[in-house]
Amino acid sequence: MTGNPGDAPAPPPDRTGNGPAVSRAEFDALFDSVRTWGRWTPADRGAWNRVTAEHVRRATALVRSGTVVPLARPWDTAPGPDNPFPALHYMSDLGDVETPEPSAHKDFIGVDYHGKAVSHLDALSHIAYRGHLYDGRAAREAVDAGGARFGAVSTLGPLVTRGVLLDLPAVLGGPWLEPGRAVHAADIVAAEQSLDVTIGEGDAVLLRSGSPRRRRELGAWDPSAASAGLHVDAMPLLAERGIALLGGDGDGDVRPSPVDGVHSPVHALAIAAMGVPLLDNLDLEALSAASAGTGRYAFLLLVAPLNIPGGTGSPVTPVAVL
Amino acid sequence: MTGNPGDAPAPPPDRTGNGPAVSRAEFDALFDSVRTWGRWTPADRGAWNRVTAEHVRRATALVRSGTVVPLARPWDTAPGPDNPFPALHYMSDLGDVETPEPSAHKDFIGVDYHGKAVSHLDALSHIAYRGHLYDGRAAREAVDAGGARFGAVSTLGPLVTRGVLLDLPAVLGGPWLEPGRAVHAADIVAAEQSLDVTIGEGDAVLLRSGSPRRRRELGAWDPSAASAGLHVDAMPLLAERGIALLGGDGDGDVRPSPVDGVHSPVHALAIAAMGVPLLDNLDLEALSAASAGTGRYAFLLLVAPLNIPGGTGSPVTPVAVL
Amino acid sequence: MTGNPGDAPAPPPDRTGNGPAVSRAEFDALFDSVRTWGRWTPADRGAWNRVTAEHVRRATALVRSGTVVPLARPWDTAPGPDNPFPALHYMSDLGDVETPEPSAHKDFIGVDYHGKAVSHLDALSHIAYRGHLYDGRAAREAVDAGGARFGAVSTLGPLVTRGVLLDLPAVLGGPWLEPGRAVHAADIVAAEQSLDVTIGEGDAVLLRSGSPRRRRELGAWDPSAASAGLHVDAMPLLAERGIALLGGDGDGDVRPSPVDGVHSPVHALAIAAMGVPLLDNLDLEALSAASAGTGRYAFLLLVAPLNIPGGTGSPVTPVAVL
Amino acid sequence: MTGNPGDAPAPPPDRTGNGPAVSRAEFDALFDSVRTWGRWTPADRGAWNRVTAEHVRRATALVRSGTVVPLARPWDTAPGPDNPFPALHYMSDLGDVETPEPSAHKDFIGVDYHGKAVSHLDALSHIAYRGHLYDGRAAREAVDAGGARFGAVSTLGPLVTRGVLLDLPAVLGGPWLEPGRAVHAADIVAAEQSLDVTIGEGDAVLLRSGSPRRRRELGAWDPSAASAGLHVDAMPLLAERGIALLGGDGDGDVRPSPVDGVHSPVHALAIAAMGVPLLDNLDLEALSAASAGTGRYAFLLLVAPLNIPGGTGSPVTPVAVL
Repeated sequence: MTGNPGDAPAPPPDRTGNGPAVSRAEFDALFDSVRTWGRWTPADRGAWNRVTAEHVRRATALVRSGTVVPLARPWDTAPGPDNPFPALHYMSDLGDVETPEPSAHKDFIGVDYHGKAVSHLDALSHIAYRGHLYDGRAAREAVDAGGARFGAVSTLGPLVTRGVLLDLPAVLGGPWLEPGRAVHAADIVAAEQSLDVTIGEGDAVLLRSGSPRRRRELGAWDPSAASAGLHVDAMPLLAERGIALLGGDGDGDVRPSPVDGVHSPVHALAIAAMGVPLLDNLDLEALSAASAGTGRYAFLLLVAPLNIPGGTGSPVTPVAVL
Repeated sequence: MTGNPGDAPAPPPDRTGNGPAVSRAEFDALFDSVRTWGRWTPADRGAWNRVTAEHVRRATALVRSGTVVPLARPWDTAPGPDNPFPALHYMSDLGDVETPEPSAHKDFIGVDYHGKAVSHLDALSHIAYRGHLYDGRAAREAVDAGGARFGAVSTLGPLVTRGVLLDLPAVLGGPWLEPGRAVHAADIVAAEQSLDVTIGEGDAVLLRSGSPRRRRELGAWDPSAASAGLHVDAMPLLAERGIALLGGDGDGDVRPSPVDGVHSPVHALAIAAMGVPLLDNLDLEALSAASAGTGRYAFLLLVAPLNIPGGTGSPVTPVAVL
Repeated sequence: MTGNPGDAPAPPPDRTGNGPAVSRAEFDALFDSVRTWGRWTPADRGAWNRVTAEHVRRATALVRSGTVVPLARPWDTAPGPDNPFPALHYMSDLGDVETPEPSAHKDFIGVDYHGKAVSHLDALSHIAYRGHLYDGRAAREAVDAGGARFGAVSTLGPLVTRGVLLDLPAVLGGPWLEPGRAVHAADIVAAEQSLDVTIGEGDAVLLRSGSPRRRRELGAWDPSAASAGLHVDAMPLLAERGIALLGGDGDGDVRPSPVDGVHSPVHALAIAAMGVPLLDNLDLEALSAASAGTGRYAFLLLVAPLNIPGGTGSPVTPVAVL
Repeated sequence: MTGNPGDAPAPPPDRTGNGPAVSRAEFDALFDSVRTWGRWTPADRGAWNRVTAEHVRRATALVRSGTVVPLARPWDTAPGPDNPFPALHYMSDLGDVETPEPSAHKDFIGVDYHGKAVSHLDALSHIAYRGHLYDGRAAREAVDAGGARFGAVSTLGPLVTRGVLLDLPAVLGGPWLEPGRAVHAADIVAAEQSLDVTIGEGDAVLLRSGSPRRRRELGAWDPSAASAGLHVDAMPLLAERGIALLGGDGDGDVRPSPVDGVHSPVHALAIAAMGVPLLDNLDLEALSAASAGTGRYAFLLLVAPLNIPGGTGSPVTPVAVL
């Protein structure tokens, strides 16, 4: 089920063994079972309310070597099958616009950051299911052209907590998970045992599929057609553990979606039901190598989104400190 | 010299007592005296090479309460005397573009981030003096329409180090420094003594003038006409201490500039001579209050710029952990 | 009431003689009296339905000298009191990005074009009064994050018709109208007589106040505080004449608004009641000089908006052919 | 050589019969033979200096029916094989940002317009060959981050002239030219004879390949890999005729390029050697139908670029009046 370097770059996803499709009714029951609406104030920080000052202290105490590992992919201005809306980057001053001295070089950046161009955080206003954001807020009333009044990234602020790397290829074998490979609850349990780490309250869980390595070695493919990611059957386990943040080198969801009529069921469950923000499109290759070297898969994790009032998320460079 | 809430919002700067103007020849001698060209590999990380794994470990060990304090101003899309080039923020999907379920809210952000609209980091490619970037690289060869090949923010990566808050109004009296107030070497020494903190090798020094509070209470003014900030006579001290990063709630430079023919002399000295990146336009009000509460002015500081290949800097949300 | 070059740049508007303020009830009655809802198919081309092929032929037959006069201001990237949201213009390739030969120079443009930065056309989706667009369409149903489904600029397409220049300073004296000067029905009639031109069915009426000349000579001011423009009492006359398009070197409305609680009453009457698109922020100085030279104030006018599906207008360069 | 609806969308281009490849030396001799450097003042309007007031009068006199035909494709925000850098279109106000009454709908547009996303005009600063723009200006001195000081679109201004449609599928048979089909001098002569029109001094020549129809019927393909367009052997004829503007529903060049080491040889010849701006990515389907109906292939053509100082071109909606 995992990949080999010689595989073709855009394989027809093999859903064999990923379990039966999930009906809409089953999904709705699952949604209700993991829902944490009404639990926290302020509600729009959702599961980040789980991260207390005590969690922060314990997370910083995890630092051993002092190695700092950034987890963001490069800002991608090149179009491709996995980058239909390239990020913008233009030089606005090459030392010839503003009067010297000194001369200045400046640049403009722009991006519709949800999507595939950049590593980013999804705030709780990003996703609505059946018209409702997290905590049952009506999406039409909470979000308009001025931005989100509930669940904005500016309300989330930064997160400092324990990060846990679930390095799935290290556990399951092969250099990466093939696109379309679903990660189930049993895979997560196996990863915990194999990597000697247990996901706990307030943790940030990072799933490595190895997709950036696959892209570098085999070329880009369309991740909306086939991505490794979580099957919805893994979400009750993560809900039970009380995670604060879920991230990965995909966008969380296995694709094609196993749920009838729901294109991004993990987004719906994590963000809208559980109040768990997502980190999409990370590059976890360096973190995988560093963790393999030390044998430790828990570390200090820092996520510092841009302070965008009303924003539904933010480009970010999450940082692990080992 | 410090301000009162009843002051007019855009005073003619009083440069009395800020010392005599600095000639271009004196400035050039100062530039040479603090220059660290040729010292590090890779050169385009400049003074961040001072921050070793040992610094990282010691910085994380500073955490006591676990309080997390973000230091970024809001992404500012409203024009004003201090925001001539407003940041862009547009909703690209209000749940009516992408097919549900789930429905998605998305937004586009854009900004020519050098300037006043957002908190940002200046990488070493941002500033050239006499045609040269840090380490003596010719600016015309290092930067073109494709971005910077030397001194890019993507080369810097994140910084984890000890932060030191020089809370100048707390030392000098008053709620803020008046625009135009120069901060001299003696002020820094006085602040160290008063706040019981000593700037050392690899530290990130954050200067608080209180400008965000002044703006909230008195309204916006044009900071390119009058800002509190460093006089160039403070730079030898900071060079001697071996700082890694210099930031503040202005852009570093006192304005009007005390140096004949050099509009941003602290930028030139820090970035081009010393290889010290700058953090501009922070909001240090919450950090000031928290530090006053604990009496501790040193803390864990995290700066995680976006991973923009060739970028001359990045919008950022620096984070202090107390 | 008209200006002199020695005047201060931002005068307190003198509304003496501009007539009494208009109550909301009077305005609503006026709105109903000029309304043309239900008259045309397709409704979202509004008064452009008045311009038949016969009008086009007659307009092209007006050409005498063959002089071509562009009517657009420069794309304005410089912030100022009359440009709070500057247009964007970045070079994306300076011959160093794309592989030669040949080498290419390329640029990115961006603009939130309604406002003051650029000459532009307002399509019928731009303005709603009491929640309704032209023809009584509910604004909330017609426009969402995907754009306008009714009244889009892509439905308007280009306009070729007779243009009439109402050169008000030429009629009323002085180099320009002072900001705040209201143009009344009587002024229009006086202009017709003085300039020997009669506004007719399907015409594009262009009002010159001389504001670009005033800006060049006296500097910029805030046009949302004080602009020369139409008083609402002029609108019944223009409705009666059956105009297709209304433009000028302001945005149509005199400011401050003479109507209680309505900030842009001419926009509401022209666009939402009469179905008449507007051309804002033109530069009519060259056309004024050319028309004065020939004594002819009617000409071939061409307006070719960008073909933006769902757009509420477009930056344009209208062209007069004399 | 022309297409059939049933063809596959992205065929390997058949260059048989398109003549032998052109060497770089042959191309350079061709460049010199059609060069008009030093001929005009101002040089940066290039061949538009050919269009005199007399041309304008004669062009307007061509109008018969009064039919107005816009020639722009829709502003394309959807990524695809022929749109790697989609145009931007965001709603900035849905009636909920600016205070009513009236409420306003507004939108932001942005585009790196050279490329495939939108119909646009190439000004003379767009292309340099061997480091030189038209008239022999050194590209590095004429263009920097502030834009073009020579050959800017703001210097061109609008064009009003006679347009000539060379409807190649109407002449050569089939609904469109297949991608890769080169148009030679002999094809142009055949088109003139068949369509009863003769290209003359100051004309705007529009070549129809039918590519928008092919795209609608067969789907998008990558035009940088295969496009119908001019072979360089057609350029001496167009130079001899003294055309002012060259446009089409491609970008002018046949692709793959027949010239060794020159990716866009028609761009180099037209813009850099002859001073002839180009119109790229038009939609000539409606004009083809209208011209077929009347049997007249000459008409009034209007091109009104945005007034962008320093711009290397502009998005446009050219307009034909029949």
